[in-house]
Amino acid sequence: MRLVVIGGVAAGTKAASRARRVDPDLEITVYQEEPEISISECGLPYLLSGVIEDREKLIARTPEKFAEKDVEVFVRHRVASIDPENKTLTVRDLTTEEEFEDSYDRLIIATGAKAVPPPIDGADLDGVFALRFLTDADAIMEYVRERSPRRAAIIGGGYIGLELAENLKEIGMDVSMLETEERVAGDYGYEVAEKVEEHLKEKGVAVRTGAQVAEFVGDDEGRVRAVGFGDEELEAELVIVAVGIQPCVELAEEAGAEIGSTGAIRVDKYLRTSLPEVWAAGDCVESANLLTGKPTWVPLGDTANQMGRVAGTNAAQGFAGVDALQFPGVIGTGVFKVFDLGVANTGLSQEDAEEAGYEVVTAALESKSKAGYYPGGEKMFVKLIADGATGRLIGAEIAGAGADKYVDICATAIWGKLSYPDLVNLDLAYAPPFGPVLSPIIQAASILANEFEKRTEGVRAAE
Amino acid sequence: MRLVVIGGVAAGTKAASRARRVDPDLEITVYQEEPEISISECGLPYLLSGVIEDREKLIARTPEKFAEKDVEVFVRHRVASIDPENKTLTVRDLTTEEEFEDSYDRLIIATGAKAVPPPIDGADLDGVFALRFLTDADAIMEYVRERSPRRAAIIGGGYIGLELAENLKEIGMDVSMLETEERVAGDYGYEVAEKVEEHLKEKGVAVRTGAQVAEFVGDDEGRVRAVGFGDEELEAELVIVAVGIQPCVELAEEAGAEIGSTGAIRVDKYLRTSLPEVWAAGDCVESANLLTGKPTWVPLGDTANQMGRVAGTNAAQGFAGVDALQFPGVIGTGVFKVFDLGVANTGLSQEDAEEAGYEVVTAALESKSKAGYYPGGEKMFVKLIADGATGRLIGAEIAGAGADKYVDICATAIWGKLSYPDLVNLDLAYAPPFGPVLSPIIQAASILANEFEKRTEGVRAAE
Repeated sequence: MRLVVIGGVAAGTKAASRARRVDPDLEITVYQEEPEISISECGLPYLLSGVIEDREKLIARTPEKFAEKDVEVFVRHRVASIDPENKTLTVRDLTTEEEFEDSYDRLIIATGAKAVPPPIDGADLDGVFALRFLTDADAIMEYVRERSPRRAAIIGGGYIGLELAENLKEIGMDVSMLETEERVAGDYGYEVAEKVEEHLKEKGVAVRTGAQVAEFVGDDEGRVRAVGFGDEELEAELVIVAVGIQPCVELAEEAGAEIGSTGAIRVDKYLRTSLPEVWAAGDCVESANLLTGKPTWVPLGDTANQMGRVAGTNAAQGFAGVDALQFPGVIGTGVFKVFDLGVANTGLSQEDAEEAGYEVVTAALESKSKAGYYPGGEKMFVKLIADGATGRLIGAEIAGAGADKYVDICATAIWGKLSYPDLVNLDLAYAPPFGPVLSPIIQAASILANEFEKRTEGVRAAE
Repeated sequence: MRLVVIGGVAAGTKAASRARRVDPDLEITVYQEEPEISISECGLPYLLSGVIEDREKLIARTPEKFAEKDVEVFVRHRVASIDPENKTLTVRDLTTEEEFEDSYDRLIIATGAKAVPPPIDGADLDGVFALRFLTDADAIMEYVRERSPRRAAIIGGGYIGLELAENLKEIGMDVSMLETEERVAGDYGYEVAEKVEEHLKEKGVAVRTGAQVAEFVGDDEGRVRAVGFGDEELEAELVIVAVGIQPCVELAEEAGAEIGSTGAIRVDKYLRTSLPEVWAAGDCVESANLLTGKPTWVPLGDTANQMGRVAGTNAAQGFAGVDALQFPGVIGTGVFKVFDLGVANTGLSQEDAEEAGYEVVTAALESKSKAGYYPGGEKMFVKLIADGATGRLIGAEIAGAGADKYVDICATAIWGKLSYPDLVNLDLAYAPPFGPVLSPIIQAASILANEFEKRTEGVRAAE
């Protein structure tokens, strides 16, 4: 029995490892287009600044390690096509440029995602980069070494853009951020977005929101020298475009796999594609949003890893019905750091919840990360978003100290379908060095409870 | 309508505040024996070392603040007896030593807990202290200033003893810890207990387990000079006894309130005692352990605060049936810091779970608090305890970086009745500065899943 995995990184490598665990006798081959089998892509912004000193540290796994487990890995090999009827593949060796055919009994597609190519004139100028792969980081670092750009423009105010702002500032560059929308960190409500923008400005990053970039302007030698937006030109010798990524689905689509409404590969809860004996996992796949019930596309390393576990298990044992693992879906949890500010969210934002038809009740508060009398406490902000009909928590946004801690409590609460009466009585851990006597989440839940009380009183008064 | 609250600190003050919120017209009086209405008792160990510089910072609320809300507070007033039939109280003013009578329509008992008096000869020597109230801390600090003791013995290796060890070491004392049981941090399994003991030793604290203290030995002037245990004597000029606390129930018991099997006041889920129109909250009350279904006594500030909210609301509105708030119970979550080590637990320990009749499946791992390639990551240990019959998480123990974060995820998961298939797919937040790509909890849950797989295979093989 032969399993082929297309793609490495988080989902592909995890799937291969799991498959080996489940079936020691399975033949397993992984094809990976990039030169490395698995890179910790989330670390790339920190490589630019030297916070991560050694690029080799980002190489999470090597083909040799896989060989030890009897998993055959081919890097710099692109799978050019899949023939699902004959269960064959055409593979191109990117070093020799030779093509060959391979076959599979079972197949896992983990082709990942790629940077959205910006529809902007001058995107091919020297000094204009995206940051998706280790090769991109290498190229940026080489450009910085050779050209010593003084001014950097980051296009896009999402979390990658924000991490880039910090890391380029860290190496002494003048950094500007240009964002099309009216706020940075656009996945968040205005309260958190404002805090992020304020923090960027405190740290000396020039933020331009509502800035629709029209072109990158080059000099005589074909190197970028400015970014044009509206009537303005912003001088910059380095431009990094971080306007988002998109799933790599061409290969699957051409083979006839169903693509979902999000543009990513559609799978069932066992991570099976519409093609026989073909599973898919990771950034190329859409999943269910457990709060809206609708398909969503959340390309994140941890989710990819979790999907890899499910796809690898199910592919290795074949589809085994009740014994097959399920990937239930996601709720949309994330965290990022920008300079000294941690920012995190889970579930639905207020806007998204209202759009999804929820009658929303919210509570927000500023609290501290330690007991008030204990030294070193820092400010934090939390906003809880609840379903007015059931009282259930459906979202949370957090900014400040402990964002990563408090968001995980909320994510787990949403997963467990907890409502505000649960949250106010939740038995969390307390000691002065770790937080205020009542967790900010419990405090916010108490405010939420008060809001629900007022609603009930309002309903009664109206009756 | 007149509400009397007996006791301040966390439960009593919270109950009074909530009652005022619910009913602006209620007459509210609080009697508190100690000189301060509300002290952050959890901060006391940190006062000894000067980590908390100013004792005033531990005074969480003042009578004046309550007066603003039209809540009458009498400090240094002890309620000597309750007559539940006539709904009257005898109150002693501890300053004037005068007694007077008061009456109530509704009553909340929040008499708290006190240090267990050690049944040890010499406990009344100068230099032998407990640490429960601010007045105790004041006395210890005065003794230290006057006598400059060089060697301290801490009797008891629970979390208060451990916090004391750190804080006395911090001011340059030679610190010994004597614990009757075979391990310190006895609420924890041996894995974590060993880590705590190792850490204490690294920090220069002399740990003596299995040490049954027989007497405190005094000098000619009636001051402690040594601790006698077994055939040994350990010299110490300062002794702090931290062998635990017990609920203050005499007043309630004499009034005829039912006392539970734990020794604390028995209440229903609305926090009503067995006496009419009398509620109770905080450290003097037992609650349901949601995992065993049995009564348990967990005297903690956060729980007291949560109970105060429920009792205050229900007492203010009278018992309003379906509209009354419920206090569901506790799962037993705690955290403490000892020097550089954070230690936390929630739910049942393996021992307790086995004792409660669970067939236990566990998983343990060492992980890191940040992505492997990101600088500053520290080691952490997690042990998950699951119910073999259902796969549900029923306990967790954590030691090391992020203990407070990871325990709250587990506590919320237990509250939400999550099982290992939920935990492996849980959508938690990830970014390199905040943790490894898969949360240690998800990693440990994967190991748990493997353990359950092995069991299933075992069952099948046996069939």
